[in-house]
Formats: sequence, C-alpha cells, structure tokens
Amino acid sequence: MIKSIEWIADKLKIIDQTEIPHRLEYRELQTVEEVFEAIRSLRIRGAPAIGVAAAFGLFLGLEKRNFSHRDDFLNQAHQLAEYLASARPTAVNLKWALQSVISKIESLEEKPSSLLEKVLTLAIEIQKDDERRCENIGRHGADLLAEGMTVLTHCNTGALATAGIGTAFAAIHTAHSQGKSIRVLVDETRPLLQGARLTMWECQQAGIPATLISDNMAAYAMQLGKVDMVIVGADRIAANGDVANKIGTYSLAVNCRYHHIPFYVAAPLSTFDFSLPSGEEIPIEERNSREVATIWGKLEITTKDATCWNPAFDVTPAHFIEGVITEEGIASPPYEESLTIFKRKIQQNNKELIL
Amino acid sequence: MIKSIEWIADKLKIIDQTEIPHRLEYRELQTVEEVFEAIRSLRIRGAPAIGVAAAFGLFLGLEKRNFSHRDDFLNQAHQLAEYLASARPTAVNLKWALQSVISKIESLEEKPSSLLEKVLTLAIEIQKDDERRCENIGRHGADLLAEGMTVLTHCNTGALATAGIGTAFAAIHTAHSQGKSIRVLVDETRPLLQGARLTMWECQQAGIPATLISDNMAAYAMQLGKVDMVIVGADRIAANGDVANKIGTYSLAVNCRYHHIPFYVAAPLSTFDFSLPSGEEIPIEERNSREVATIWGKLEITTKDATCWNPAFDVTPAHFIEGVITEEGIASPPYEESLTIFKRKIQQNNKELIL
Repeated sequence: MIKSIEWIADKLKIIDQTEIPHRLEYRELQTVEEVFEAIRSLRIRGAPAIGVAAAFGLFLGLEKRNFSHRDDFLNQAHQLAEYLASARPTAVNLKWALQSVISKIESLEEKPSSLLEKVLTLAIEIQKDDERRCENIGRHGADLLAEGMTVLTHCNTGALATAGIGTAFAAIHTAHSQGKSIRVLVDETRPLLQGARLTMWECQQAGIPATLISDNMAAYAMQLGKVDMVIVGADRIAANGDVANKIGTYSLAVNCRYHHIPFYVAAPLSTFDFSLPSGEEIPIEERNSREVATIWGKLEITTKDATCWNPAFDVTPAHFIEGVITEEGIASPPYEESLTIFKRKIQQNNKELIL
Repeated sequence: MIKSIEWIADKLKIIDQTEIPHRLEYRELQTVEEVFEAIRSLRIRGAPAIGVAAAFGLFLGLEKRNFSHRDDFLNQAHQLAEYLASARPTAVNLKWALQSVISKIESLEEKPSSLLEKVLTLAIEIQKDDERRCENIGRHGADLLAEGMTVLTHCNTGALATAGIGTAFAAIHTAHSQGKSIRVLVDETRPLLQGARLTMWECQQAGIPATLISDNMAAYAMQLGKVDMVIVGADRIAANGDVANKIGTYSLAVNCRYHHIPFYVAAPLSTFDFSLPSGEEIPIEERNSREVATIWGKLEITTKDATCWNPAFDVTPAHFIEGVITEEGIASPPYEESLTIFKRKIQQNNKELIL
C-alpha cells in the first residue's frame, strides 16, 4: 500500500503530492516550519493526513527547542499548535490532532524531556489510529456497494489523503478487494485537480477501473443513468450534520437529490465538530486566486489580472446526505439520534486516546 | 467591436480563438479544407459563428472547382455542405446555414458562374443577418436585467461566438451599454476553458466587471446568494424546447431549479430544430479524450493512458428553462404555444432568406 506519510528515525517522510502523477517524489521534513509549508502548499493534504502530519510537526518544533521547566514546554507547545493549525483553517482534524496531543501532555506532571517523548508517542498513536479507522470506514462503506456499481467521487480521499487506505476511497478500495466489480467516475476537481492527479493515480495503483471527467460532466452522467452512488470525504462536519468538503461537493449533492442518487460522506469521527451548531459557522478557506487563473501556476488560462474567486471548500446541508460512513458505522438521518450515539463514541474515543 | 469573422476580398479572415487570450491572432482561410479544419479544431466556434463560416467555406470550395453545368454545381455543393456539416455534429446552425444556401441556389435556374456568385451573396447575407439577430437578442435579453444584478454564464456566447455581439453575452453587453451596473460570474468551462479564455477576455474588452470561477463553484455561489440569473447559449433546441448546449449547462440548470434562480437560454431562432421532437434525438459530439486528460494538449493533468469521457454538450430539458431569448422576443412556457408562434416566424424568416 502507498504510504503518504511515515516517521523514520527523526524525520517525517512524505510523498510530495504536488508532483503526483508525474513523479513519485518523497520529501523529508525536519522542522516544524517545513511541516507547516508542506501542509499549506498541499504537498501533504487530506483532512486525516494533515492531522497526522501536524502532530509530528509539533514534535519536530518542540524537539529543536530548550525548556527550563514544564510550563515553558506547555507554553511553546500551545504556540506551535496554533501556528500549525493556521496552515489550513477548514479541516478540523488538524486542530483535533493537535488538541489531542496538547490535552494529554497537559494532564501529565512530568519534566520537559518526558513530555517531549510523549508527544512523539502520541503522534505515532494518531497515525496508527487513523490506519485502523480507515480500514473500518472501508468495511462499513463497502457494505453499501453492490456488484457492478459505478461510484462517482470528488477530490482525493485515498491513501494519499490519510494515514491508511482512505475514507470515501476506502469504501471503493475495500469493495474492490472483496472481489466486487466496481467502477469509479472521477471528478477532476478544479482548481487543483486532485481527482485527475491523485485519485486516478490511486485507482491505477489499486487496479480499479476508473474514468476521468470534468466536474461539469457529473450531472450529465447522472442524467444518463451512469452513476449509482456518490461518495465524498469531509473536512469538517458540524453538530447538525452539515458537511464542509472540497469545493464542488455541494453541486454534486444538489444533483444527486434531483436524480435520486444516494449521496454519502465518509469520514472518521474526528471530523465532527460539535462546537459548531451548523455548517454556517465552519470557516471556509479562500485560497490564492492564481489557483483558478492558472493550472498549478504553470499555464495561464485567462486574461492578465483577471478577478477570480477561489473558495477551497463548500458546505453541504445535512438533509442532502444519505449517511456519514464512519469507523463506527453509518450515521443516518435523523441525525440528532445517530449523532448522539456517535458523540458518546467520540468522547469515549478521545478519552482513550487522552488517558 | 470585435469581429471574429470577416470576408475580405476572397478570403475568410478569422480570429484564431485557440490563441485567445494570450495572443490576438488572425488567420486567413482560402480553401474549404482550411475552413473545415478551423471549425473542427475550434479556431472558430460558437453555434452562430460556425454557421456563418461554413457558408463562406462552401463558397471557397465551389470557387476552386470547374463545373460543366448546373447539376454538376449543385451536386458538388451538396457534397461540400455535407463535408462541412460533419465538422461539428451538435450545433444545428451549421447545417441550417448550409441548407439555407443550398435551398436557395437549387431554386434558381442559372448557370454555375451565377450560382457561385449567389452563394457568396447568401453567405454575406447570413453574416449580416446574424449581426441583426444578435442585436435583437441583446435588446430582449437586456430587458430581463435590472440594475445591480449578477449574471452567471457558461462557455462563450459573445462576439467570438457569433457574427455580432453574441447571444447570452449580448443580453449582458446590451444591459451594460444601457448604463445598468451588471456583474458577471464566468464559469471557466472545462475542458476547453472557453469561459476563462474567451468570455473573460470579452468582458475585459467591453469593460464589464467579471469574476472567474471553476465550474464546480457555481452551485456554492448560488447557495451564498451571489447569483441573480443564469443565461447560457444553445447549440440546438428540439421541438419540445429541450436545449443542447456546452457540457456543464445541465448542471447549472438543476442547481438553478433548486435555488429558485431563473435560468435563461439565448439563441437565434435558427437554433430551433423542429425535426427533432425532443432533446433525446440531438446527436451529442464526443471529442477526443485528450481534451480532458490535458489542458489544451500542453499540460498533462492525469496518469498516462487514463480513460476519460468527453461529451462536448449536454441536454437540458425544457422544463428547467424560464425562457428562450430570441431575436423575436422571449419564448416562455407553455412552450407549445410560444413555439408555435416562433415556428411560424422561423418559417417566414427562412422564406425571406431563401426567396
């Protein structure tokens, strides 16, 4: 399996996703600044993967510093966590992973060197935990997929986006591994083309038949009966079930509703942010307009000085979503009920990780 | 005003639209094969513009040949018209323009040299006629636009796509000329990026404030209340009002319905094809998959040998369409009624052109 992120000796080794599919290039990150840059510039991306990377980034930042006492250590840890979290504002896993580590070390009355060791242990634990979650999401998601189905997906949610086999892609990958014949329609996902670059590459690596389309072809494919289900990932899910995910997700959801096609979201429970009552409160990252005006800064596609709008995410209201495929099963409407069960599980889960 | 197509002496001078916005380059076409290639490769594009170009192409093809008698001339004219029409199968204006010319010369009992002269006269007439139609479409369309509105449009429907000021774009252009403050949201229109390249350029030329978005952002813009109306062009309209237009149009129509945003189509009456009962019968051109796998063949965006689907158009059912803005006014539901009136006008119009 592809490993998008690995801790080797004292370095964080990542696949530089900006080079896929043209080159499979690895980068070794040795400082917190390098981790910040890698997250910010999408060398490493995908909500779960950046959570894992940030936890290691926190360790790398703390490791380089000297601390006179515990308070000093905690102080700096807070500052570094804030710095790392600012790299991408929408995905909650980034904040969640950093918060998990900070809460744990705050509860320990130990000297800086022991706390530092603990930070690394926790980062490794978050990574392993994500692997297990992906497997379980895959298992639950695959149950929804029947022989011969065509699944449309958006952006990239596979091994490159997580520490494991993925979220939405895990469902497809697991069903394929079970011997089901599944086909994938891949939205190219402008502006950064994660579908064309990364998901098509992952399908090829896994031997899953895939067809690439421009984002604006999805609705027409639905009209022609070429789509049996849509599964996407999530960057943050509000308490009411509203989902922030890669720009273009909402358009798919509206089209699924019109065409009576089930629309599923797949995400680990850590993606839920119960501090936000609804999607309206989720901060939406607006990225540089050059991402729209060019293809990766390499090819200009419009007039000089064109005004562009570049929201990196959109919000899909809960009522469009057939269910959220999590590692604990599928949360379905009415969300109030299933989310209450999940909330308890999340709290339990965080407790296990923290204590 | 920009002239995308001009007849100068014995050559067809066109703007090479594949070079916009990077270079404003003209090409002079002197043979029917050059016209065919220019239409096929989208150097000249837009349903009305390729109709005009094809009429001149027919003249260029006939002019180079020798004819012993009238039948020989008509025979060759038919063959050339079929050849030219095959360059793009979806837009009906191409066929319509060629058919108009052929019907006219068939009705004349004259010798080849006179018929040849008549072909050129008719081509020039079709071009002038398109200019007038555009102006009228603009006038009727502008009536729908109020001060301060934001109009979202797809692909390119301005001066580059027609012999005049455009179809959908004519409404915006005319409202702007009337002093109304109108803003435009421009869909980039993958795969060939006509919105990013051509419509943004036309907005800039006309001084109309425009913002470029990726196609998958349109629904989110609607959710946020940033879109007051959508106006698109058409390549062919079936008898029941179903519209074939650039791929991505249908997705916009579904999203407009959900968001209660009026969705208009603007097209000359020559776009109606009453020989087809519904959109299901409209042939949809599938273009080379390299257009999806690359950006203009210049930049690879996916894996080597990726399977891609590339329908160039989609079909929007009539019930999604608030009205069709034509040179004679706006056809609104119930279509049966207004289309009957229009059918009569079209027949009159064709008669005028033909007789």
